[in-house]
Amino acid sequence: MHAPTSAMTAAPSDHAPPRVEPRAVPAAMAQALRQRFGERFSTAAAVREQHGRGESVYDAAPPEAVVFCESTDEVTFVVRQAALHAVPVIPFGVGSSLEGHLLAVQGGVSIDVSRMNRIVAVNAEDLTVTVQAGVTREQLNAEVRDSGLFFPIDPGANASLGGMAATRASGTNAVRYGTMRENVLALTVVSAEGEVMHTGTRAKKSAAGYDLTRLYVGSEGTLGVITEVTLRLYPLPEAVSAAICTFPSIDAAVRTTIQIIQMGVPIARCELLDTNAIRGVNKHNKLDLPEAPLLLMEFHGSEAGVKEQAETVQDIATEHGGTAFRFATTPEERTRLWTARHRAYFAALQLRPGCRCQSTDTCVPISRLAESINESIAEAEAAGIPYWTVGHVGDGNFHLSYLFYPDDPREAAEVERLSVQMVRRALRLEGTCTGEHGIGLHKMAYLVDEAGPAALATMKAIKRALDPKNIMNPGKVLAL
Amino acid sequence: MHAPTSAMTAAPSDHAPPRVEPRAVPAAMAQALRQRFGERFSTAAAVREQHGRGESVYDAAPPEAVVFCESTDEVTFVVRQAALHAVPVIPFGVGSSLEGHLLAVQGGVSIDVSRMNRIVAVNAEDLTVTVQAGVTREQLNAEVRDSGLFFPIDPGANASLGGMAATRASGTNAVRYGTMRENVLALTVVSAEGEVMHTGTRAKKSAAGYDLTRLYVGSEGTLGVITEVTLRLYPLPEAVSAAICTFPSIDAAVRTTIQIIQMGVPIARCELLDTNAIRGVNKHNKLDLPEAPLLLMEFHGSEAGVKEQAETVQDIATEHGGTAFRFATTPEERTRLWTARHRAYFAALQLRPGCRCQSTDTCVPISRLAESINESIAEAEAAGIPYWTVGHVGDGNFHLSYLFYPDDPREAAEVERLSVQMVRRALRLEGTCTGEHGIGLHKMAYLVDEAGPAALATMKAIKRALDPKNIMNPGKVLAL
Repeated sequence: MHAPTSAMTAAPSDHAPPRVEPRAVPAAMAQALRQRFGERFSTAAAVREQHGRGESVYDAAPPEAVVFCESTDEVTFVVRQAALHAVPVIPFGVGSSLEGHLLAVQGGVSIDVSRMNRIVAVNAEDLTVTVQAGVTREQLNAEVRDSGLFFPIDPGANASLGGMAATRASGTNAVRYGTMRENVLALTVVSAEGEVMHTGTRAKKSAAGYDLTRLYVGSEGTLGVITEVTLRLYPLPEAVSAAICTFPSIDAAVRTTIQIIQMGVPIARCELLDTNAIRGVNKHNKLDLPEAPLLLMEFHGSEAGVKEQAETVQDIATEHGGTAFRFATTPEERTRLWTARHRAYFAALQLRPGCRCQSTDTCVPISRLAESINESIAEAEAAGIPYWTVGHVGDGNFHLSYLFYPDDPREAAEVERLSVQMVRRALRLEGTCTGEHGIGLHKMAYLVDEAGPAALATMKAIKRALDPKNIMNPGKVLAL
Repeated sequence: MHAPTSAMTAAPSDHAPPRVEPRAVPAAMAQALRQRFGERFSTAAAVREQHGRGESVYDAAPPEAVVFCESTDEVTFVVRQAALHAVPVIPFGVGSSLEGHLLAVQGGVSIDVSRMNRIVAVNAEDLTVTVQAGVTREQLNAEVRDSGLFFPIDPGANASLGGMAATRASGTNAVRYGTMRENVLALTVVSAEGEVMHTGTRAKKSAAGYDLTRLYVGSEGTLGVITEVTLRLYPLPEAVSAAICTFPSIDAAVRTTIQIIQMGVPIARCELLDTNAIRGVNKHNKLDLPEAPLLLMEFHGSEAGVKEQAETVQDIATEHGGTAFRFATTPEERTRLWTARHRAYFAALQLRPGCRCQSTDTCVPISRLAESINESIAEAEAAGIPYWTVGHVGDGNFHLSYLFYPDDPREAAEVERLSVQMVRRALRLEGTCTGEHGIGLHKMAYLVDEAGPAALATMKAIKRALDPKNIMNPGKVLAL
């Protein structure tokens, strides 16, 4: 933990992305790309606009051009051109980034890998799969289901696996199955010089040299372009059941979660929804869940194992004042509940028509979670900013989201002030400013405080060594 | 996978470590260290000799001096002196490295952290602990047992946690609990400039910037000195049981393992011993296990869960011709079996009195494991080199160890030839040259082939950026 510096107060207070003088794509490069890619090289305004934004609070910052690549070889061609002309490249999957990763704040070319959507190899016996970077998580799961397997990492969006690797994504199953950090075995990466490297093998573990796989996982396109991803798969559980339980307070729900984890119950999902989230979900889905903090849980295992887990959890919940414990064992019931959870974002938006939603993403040691959520809620209430909260509470990660009108300068400023306070608290409580959304543009000032000078200097040294011309998604993660 | 290059044939064929002109410790530096550390700065021959070796096949290469540090601050002092005078430093825990990591092949000073043996903080609710780098795994487990917790990573030796992090160690529990890669949350590292950095927080997951934690885990002292380690802990399982089962062939044992993993049985340990290992174990421990391939397994969970797992596994084993399935549910029986397993090394040495044992460490996708082991055995038999095999087969990792007389040039050369063949096969089968022992000196040529030119260049760029004077354990992992 590091004392907050003045940098943190410099978090963006409006939504114009910080742009520097863009490095223009020279005619020779545009010509080379057009010649190689034909219509897959586009400078159309609508295409550029779509590629220069994500799901962040920022206005778009379109690239000068977009190239739709279909192979690692094609990515190599683009990056070599970019290196030759010192022009930025920004990898693009499905555009679901939340923190401004995709904005071309220094100009350059967007490398769209969405057409790289081939499953390269399923190795069912080894529980591994290799996919091109543009394959989405839903596509992957559809393709491996017949083999009795699944890939558990589920960020809210149907993101590309390349993008999920690049942002070190996770989601609701991470409490049991880990994040992209634990589930990527190897990557194919195009370096800033346009060289192709394989960062690992299909072996489940390795002690062979520096862990380049984990270095590129979470590097947000700033060190290279991920073109293929080798992932761990898991056997579809024999039995699955879901349960919900209502609690008198967030404290009670979190205490329940802590005890579940401490007792070693291998819970697969453990999601908190606060009262406001429940209100939105009820309205949006015509449900009538009690308007109080709720845990939505899922158990994976054998028939007997799932039953035992659920019983243990029910006992723990009851001890902490949990009521209205209810099972959902049929696929239909489960789908209904999880669909409601996954639509919580849209449900919340309807609570304040026309508003924008800014999600936070701190993650703290679980013993500090209730304090972290409660203080954040108290601050939002004091500021009069509507909010709602969902949390991957088994991991100590929660998203308190503010519903605000970006054109109202007071609200916009308050939201940033509240976000900064929340991050400061997370750092004080030995946590992180981002559990799963990444740094992008939006959290660069937070990273300065979280990492501290020596770790930040180390990250910058790595960036300079691997991308000396600063062409790989420049202006993100680190201010060089 | 990369085509083997000529580099691989250059694997060491004798046991003199490759030494370059050592960089001497200048008088001013020795004086500064003596002044600060008094008797904890030693140039005594016996101390230097002990610190210039490990458990590798190499002869010792003693450092010029040893400093016994007691704090991160003291490590910082030594590293700053080393940086000032461009003198190598080599971190030292308990000296159990297997691949020559500790040899002072370029001279310099050994930084002994064994007195940094303080548990800094146990956070039972969060299932985390922070320890100084010199704490050993057995010490850690003794200290957290009363909190109902344990740390599962168990390399053969009672290694230091700093050393285990530095080599990305694992052991028999990795099939369920992962390796140091998955279980280190954060590190305190002294950089090559003598700056102190914290590579992470106590949050269970994070997407904040480059994953420095995973970069230093497995960096083998070549990028910085690890002085503190924050680890994940696990609740002691409610129930534990062990079982053994004999198989008609290695194939049958491996097919059983594959099916156990594929069915999602959360097996905690799944160890293979080949016929030769069993012979040694029987003799050494006065046991009478059938002289055939054996799986030694352990199950963790609730009483009912453990029972269910064991029954499922017994069914699978029987299908594959497993016989003599036997449970060990009492702690005493379990301890007897696992002690026999842990002593397999000493048992094997007695099979050929006066011999040395060279362990291999390849790891392959589990579908390739039987092929990998069987071919390696056939080659050893053809060469007339006695061997024995144990394997963390749930992970695809096995140690076929050669028993040879190092003074016999034919045997020494044959062992190196067999090792090279085994690594080539592992790479061909999409595996790695080292599952858990690291690169050190011994596998540098293997790493060249495994990583391939682009990944190797990336590793070298990182090394040069973070250690421009090449003072951090130089001459290991990468030849610069």
